[in-house]
Amino acid sequence: MDFSLSPRAADLRERVAAFMAEHVEPVEEDYHRDLAAARVEGTQWTPLPVIEDLKAKARAEGLWNLFLPVEHAGDYAAAYGTDGGEGLSNVDYAPLAELMGRSAIAPIVFNCNAPDTGNMEVLLRYGTQEQRDRWLDPLLDGRIRSAFTMTEPGVASSDATNMEATAIVDGDEVVINGRKWWSTGVGHPDCEIFVFMGLTDPDADRHHRHTMVLVPRDTPGVRIERLLTTMGYADEPLGHGEVSFTDVRVPVGNILSGPGEAFGIAQGRLGPGRIHHCMRLIGAAEVALEAAIRRGTARTAFGKPLTHLGGNRERIADARIAIDQARLLVLHAAWKLDAGGPMNALSEVSQIKVVVPNMALGVIDMAIQLHGGAGMSDDFPLAMSWVNSRTLRLADGPDEVHRGLIARLELAKHS
Amino acid sequence: MDFSLSPRAADLRERVAAFMAEHVEPVEEDYHRDLAAARVEGTQWTPLPVIEDLKAKARAEGLWNLFLPVEHAGDYAAAYGTDGGEGLSNVDYAPLAELMGRSAIAPIVFNCNAPDTGNMEVLLRYGTQEQRDRWLDPLLDGRIRSAFTMTEPGVASSDATNMEATAIVDGDEVVINGRKWWSTGVGHPDCEIFVFMGLTDPDADRHHRHTMVLVPRDTPGVRIERLLTTMGYADEPLGHGEVSFTDVRVPVGNILSGPGEAFGIAQGRLGPGRIHHCMRLIGAAEVALEAAIRRGTARTAFGKPLTHLGGNRERIADARIAIDQARLLVLHAAWKLDAGGPMNALSEVSQIKVVVPNMALGVIDMAIQLHGGAGMSDDFPLAMSWVNSRTLRLADGPDEVHRGLIARLELAKHS
Amino acid sequence: MDFSLSPRAADLRERVAAFMAEHVEPVEEDYHRDLAAARVEGTQWTPLPVIEDLKAKARAEGLWNLFLPVEHAGDYAAAYGTDGGEGLSNVDYAPLAELMGRSAIAPIVFNCNAPDTGNMEVLLRYGTQEQRDRWLDPLLDGRIRSAFTMTEPGVASSDATNMEATAIVDGDEVVINGRKWWSTGVGHPDCEIFVFMGLTDPDADRHHRHTMVLVPRDTPGVRIERLLTTMGYADEPLGHGEVSFTDVRVPVGNILSGPGEAFGIAQGRLGPGRIHHCMRLIGAAEVALEAAIRRGTARTAFGKPLTHLGGNRERIADARIAIDQARLLVLHAAWKLDAGGPMNALSEVSQIKVVVPNMALGVIDMAIQLHGGAGMSDDFPLAMSWVNSRTLRLADGPDEVHRGLIARLELAKHS
Amino acid sequence: MDFSLSPRAADLRERVAAFMAEHVEPVEEDYHRDLAAARVEGTQWTPLPVIEDLKAKARAEGLWNLFLPVEHAGDYAAAYGTDGGEGLSNVDYAPLAELMGRSAIAPIVFNCNAPDTGNMEVLLRYGTQEQRDRWLDPLLDGRIRSAFTMTEPGVASSDATNMEATAIVDGDEVVINGRKWWSTGVGHPDCEIFVFMGLTDPDADRHHRHTMVLVPRDTPGVRIERLLTTMGYADEPLGHGEVSFTDVRVPVGNILSGPGEAFGIAQGRLGPGRIHHCMRLIGAAEVALEAAIRRGTARTAFGKPLTHLGGNRERIADARIAIDQARLLVLHAAWKLDAGGPMNALSEVSQIKVVVPNMALGVIDMAIQLHGGAGMSDDFPLAMSWVNSRTLRLADGPDEVHRGLIARLELAKHS
Repeated sequence: MDFSLSPRAADLRERVAAFMAEHVEPVEEDYHRDLAAARVEGTQWTPLPVIEDLKAKARAEGLWNLFLPVEHAGDYAAAYGTDGGEGLSNVDYAPLAELMGRSAIAPIVFNCNAPDTGNMEVLLRYGTQEQRDRWLDPLLDGRIRSAFTMTEPGVASSDATNMEATAIVDGDEVVINGRKWWSTGVGHPDCEIFVFMGLTDPDADRHHRHTMVLVPRDTPGVRIERLLTTMGYADEPLGHGEVSFTDVRVPVGNILSGPGEAFGIAQGRLGPGRIHHCMRLIGAAEVALEAAIRRGTARTAFGKPLTHLGGNRERIADARIAIDQARLLVLHAAWKLDAGGPMNALSEVSQIKVVVPNMALGVIDMAIQLHGGAGMSDDFPLAMSWVNSRTLRLADGPDEVHRGLIARLELAKHS
Repeated sequence: MDFSLSPRAADLRERVAAFMAEHVEPVEEDYHRDLAAARVEGTQWTPLPVIEDLKAKARAEGLWNLFLPVEHAGDYAAAYGTDGGEGLSNVDYAPLAELMGRSAIAPIVFNCNAPDTGNMEVLLRYGTQEQRDRWLDPLLDGRIRSAFTMTEPGVASSDATNMEATAIVDGDEVVINGRKWWSTGVGHPDCEIFVFMGLTDPDADRHHRHTMVLVPRDTPGVRIERLLTTMGYADEPLGHGEVSFTDVRVPVGNILSGPGEAFGIAQGRLGPGRIHHCMRLIGAAEVALEAAIRRGTARTAFGKPLTHLGGNRERIADARIAIDQARLLVLHAAWKLDAGGPMNALSEVSQIKVVVPNMALGVIDMAIQLHGGAGMSDDFPLAMSWVNSRTLRLADGPDEVHRGLIARLELAKHS
Repeated sequence: MDFSLSPRAADLRERVAAFMAEHVEPVEEDYHRDLAAARVEGTQWTPLPVIEDLKAKARAEGLWNLFLPVEHAGDYAAAYGTDGGEGLSNVDYAPLAELMGRSAIAPIVFNCNAPDTGNMEVLLRYGTQEQRDRWLDPLLDGRIRSAFTMTEPGVASSDATNMEATAIVDGDEVVINGRKWWSTGVGHPDCEIFVFMGLTDPDADRHHRHTMVLVPRDTPGVRIERLLTTMGYADEPLGHGEVSFTDVRVPVGNILSGPGEAFGIAQGRLGPGRIHHCMRLIGAAEVALEAAIRRGTARTAFGKPLTHLGGNRERIADARIAIDQARLLVLHAAWKLDAGGPMNALSEVSQIKVVVPNMALGVIDMAIQLHGGAGMSDDFPLAMSWVNSRTLRLADGPDEVHRGLIARLELAKHS
Repeated sequence: MDFSLSPRAADLRERVAAFMAEHVEPVEEDYHRDLAAARVEGTQWTPLPVIEDLKAKARAEGLWNLFLPVEHAGDYAAAYGTDGGEGLSNVDYAPLAELMGRSAIAPIVFNCNAPDTGNMEVLLRYGTQEQRDRWLDPLLDGRIRSAFTMTEPGVASSDATNMEATAIVDGDEVVINGRKWWSTGVGHPDCEIFVFMGLTDPDADRHHRHTMVLVPRDTPGVRIERLLTTMGYADEPLGHGEVSFTDVRVPVGNILSGPGEAFGIAQGRLGPGRIHHCMRLIGAAEVALEAAIRRGTARTAFGKPLTHLGGNRERIADARIAIDQARLLVLHAAWKLDAGGPMNALSEVSQIKVVVPNMALGVIDMAIQLHGGAGMSDDFPLAMSWVNSRTLRLADGPDEVHRGLIARLELAKHS
């Protein structure tokens, strides 16, 4: 058993950390101030130019598309990946995702942000050459953005087989109708392609009823109905949209893998994506713990620094423990995913999806409390980070569904 | 021991409930939609006209200023209170506050919203006749609004003796300098008067250094620097402001009670105010539990209503228990406050301040989870209600300070 | 709403407290030492003589059978109850039960211990005159003891309809077969009568299959198989037994209420019994909190009293809060029970059954932790008190069953 | 990063597991029944013969003294260790300790039980050749047992510098006076040697006041005052004793390392010991989870297996998660200990000491609850296992002290 990083991961971690320190952290406060000003002006959906500058810098340093998986990277790594090298295993990429999670803008700067990474993986694994040429290349290039449209307002979407929007094959075309929401990314002006999941054959078995289809955003009948908020945050410029599809027609060649194959694609898509989400949240939790300690030592009440009052030190200790436990669990899940693929890590991936957002919420909440009212404001990244973590107790499957899966696998060992 | 409501409280509860059902609930969804539209237009700080309509209706039905306390109501109840009756005890008013807490707009409709109620109480208890004529009457009348400016950005304000803004007596005037924030209400165009707390004599004993002064908003040197958000919510049209005071001069007649008396006023102000806050949160928690049950029975996943899945019923049971325990604790604290004043209920008031916001957070969070992504959006009042509850773990003293006081009183029994 | 005690309850509370201070507390340490010595000698199932002395004293002061309920006390109160007065309401008796719960021996001293109180209530409510003469009188007199034999080793007894032991009417007799366990009290030499619950008609509806029968302990075929421990404690001299019944025959006149009526009796029996259990646990929790504070102020580590270290004060505050919340919930449940009987307080009684044992476990655990290793030993009553509280998360229905009932009632409000 | 076992650890794990399945598990139920019978007879402090049989078998298979650390194993491994091989690293030994923790008797069977392992390590690291010949050899041989006498009844022993018992150098002798308790192992008839910690120089700096001395049990003036229980369990035949030392004189050659060196020895002793304790608890937690699943699927209530009721599956999932997180944290701490010694793993070792006992308590408590009353009895190992875990929240430093250390180290990163 060896908990040390591989030389390549260690080197990349150092380089990503250096890039963050030199280029990202110094502009972050300005970025948020400018975004707040843009909100007042009503221009918050126009990306701030600093992002493109940073993307160019990251790419120039070879810190680009680091998420590209070993097994599917192929030529893409040479053209679009780190130093032209091969892709990284999940366990090697994980510490980089943690670093990116320390900043609200870093993931997009390194072209490693959700939902684009997940969509790129889907194209790598299931896309035809034509689909990949048309959509994967510009995504890897960072020229366009994408959205994943699965969740629906009308049904409990925690059960993916509930989806009611339709994708009906009609000759050479697929006809799409229905309404989706929580489609992250649709607010961005560069968002050009949607991965859509719809019901094709209600009479098939539960896991072969739905189909994944590539739907260009500008297809007639596609309409962004509104952009949603989570606890008051709109997450500009990506945003979370409600989107209606009315008699939308795309060629059958836009189907991914094949009719009825959506469920399997969705499952495969989520393994690495959950590792990424979780590691980013661990980064956010570390930032929160650091902030808590800084504030707790700098401010005094009743004649003592806050860190000397009541149970504050115990809470700091508990935060340290919770973060370290969470990180080890994610790294272990990543290692199992690398070793045997998604089916080898079903319980592990569900475990991290339960543990990490809840851990992050606890640590960030503690940090907010130590900041007083300031912690609830946007003077610190804590409030937004809390909301982001809270959302991840629902996105990609609510805690309860993951707990159900873990229990089912556990009981199966004894039957 | 008798847990039943007094006839007067029972009658008022029925009338408030009927008013809510008839007048408030039907307009609430529209109100929030209109406010959201106003935000896009940039007019969110102009109160929507429906509020004034509802205020007039409530007043016409005698459901006005119900918070007016028995001991100080005096002539005011006749002029401005319920049916011209006397004020209500805390234990009689509490169930009405719970009802008001079911709606984001009801407290202001009944002229029972923070911080105005607390400021009116301060004027009732400590105001001179002149101060009361000038400020209390229009507040009771609902014509103007007020703010309480105590918390400061530069110091840990959980320790009230930390306050550094100054209120220096200079002949016939008080000279005020410093910066305050989290001054709730300053965003409202009718907010005309600030209750300001400043340092007067740093050499006095810890609890006699600060002074409360009435500062009209339009006094030269007063400047609203910005309006803050809590997790993305600006709480329009009241808002939470950061306010600077630069060589602000008001007559010494604007001092409340006397120089150095601020600490005692602040303590007295908070007893009933905490009862009100807590009861409103209990109302919000009941709304959340009802919403959770509605959603949990209406939506199905994996072939069953959500209420039949996993631990959802246990969570509903736990929510029921937590709400009932919290309500009883608040009612008991109110009864002790009625029986012997703030010093008789020190531990009890701190207890509810710890228990109730945390209880509400738990119940609302459970409801959010059962709503899926919708729970995080503004399609339901849950997200805003959660943020409001979270803020109350900090406002009026963070949990940790209250726990410290409770422990001190507990240890004192044995020394 | 009035949280003050009635004059009669206040008077009795003072008298019970005085009796405890004068007679019970001074002998308690000796009692436990003598019992420990008896265990080494193997004589632990012979009651120590001090108990009978104390019983006589309590009875002489009119502090006897205080649990006798108002509605059924009748002539018994005159002969065997407090001062010959009428019985007490649940809300008036509750504070007395709390006081008794401060001591391991007090309940039996006042003839108010489980399971005898519950069995006496059953006889009061459902017993024929003959049954009452034969068994109730000596129980009220404190001359004999009783047991309640319901739980079975072979089935999940949390579902009372699972019971498989049989009670078959055969002419003038009832024939009883089966095995019961966790029959509290069977270790005591004075235990002469068992209230037995058995299956009579498996084809009847779920709630009319079982019958309650009075079975004298010395009936042929009754055999105490063994005495059980809970985490190493045998709870001498009452004990918890496993009892086998082999072709046991008693007259049909020993049936309580009627064949198939057991379920209803069991339900009715448990309302007041749960109030008593819960109030006693609250007393035990108060004792633990007091001990924690004494130890925490007397002992120093790292140069400070334990109460000045880490989160200890916060834990003391949380204990104070938890106890007060639990007590109010129980008193309210008692009040509802008094006002409208068991069907009026179904949710409330289940709520306290969930809340109070868990609360007590938390407070006692905290106190153990502050005592270090000593807290786990029998030098303090904490360890035994913890185990007793833990058992009550299972006895009289596990938490999960009560939560299920609370949820069902809550959902029913909305259907 | 590689989470797989080394070939040697994998091989040993398989062999230990096979030994447990073949030799230990089949006798365990009988062992506990015989011990219970011995308690009734008063012979419980005489070890049952099966233990020596199993020890001989384990040794014959080379599964003996597996705890022997790499760096100090030296010749001892050849004579007394696994296959004559070298010692194992902490990370390689950890999975074996987990397996041993599945049984109450396995640790002693493999000569890997506390406190003997810790005392053997002390002798390996700090013992003179003479001390090792005299005491280490027979301990490694399994012929004698030992005790560690540090904790005192009169002071808060969580602060090791509080110890008041004295160890005064008087010419060629050390004179020992004082009282210790929670000396585990003193009940065993083979316990021949105590590692005693006493105050030598109260004027030295805090960490150089105390001395460790080897005190043979039969030295005049040593007296076992009593054997303590933890929640009713005496843990025969090892037991936990209270021991008085009255003018006990041993040669100065019995001092370990040197006068005033006790604190350093105590610190070094506890690193690996805590790894062992924690891994054993993880084994106990796995046993509890397995038992919970077996019981939960075998028993039905309300027409369904318990695993289909309420939140039981969520609790099973949470148990799985908690165990896996705890194991990873311990393995990581072991790896850090191997890599850089105790000072490299200070925070990590304290973290596992907080996490693992609390985790085990949660899992076992859940299992108890699913077993109903049976879970509290000795028909299952759950109750005893719970008590053992609870004790470990106090032994080797209470949670609070470890949290304090973790926080101190965390804050130090930022100062």
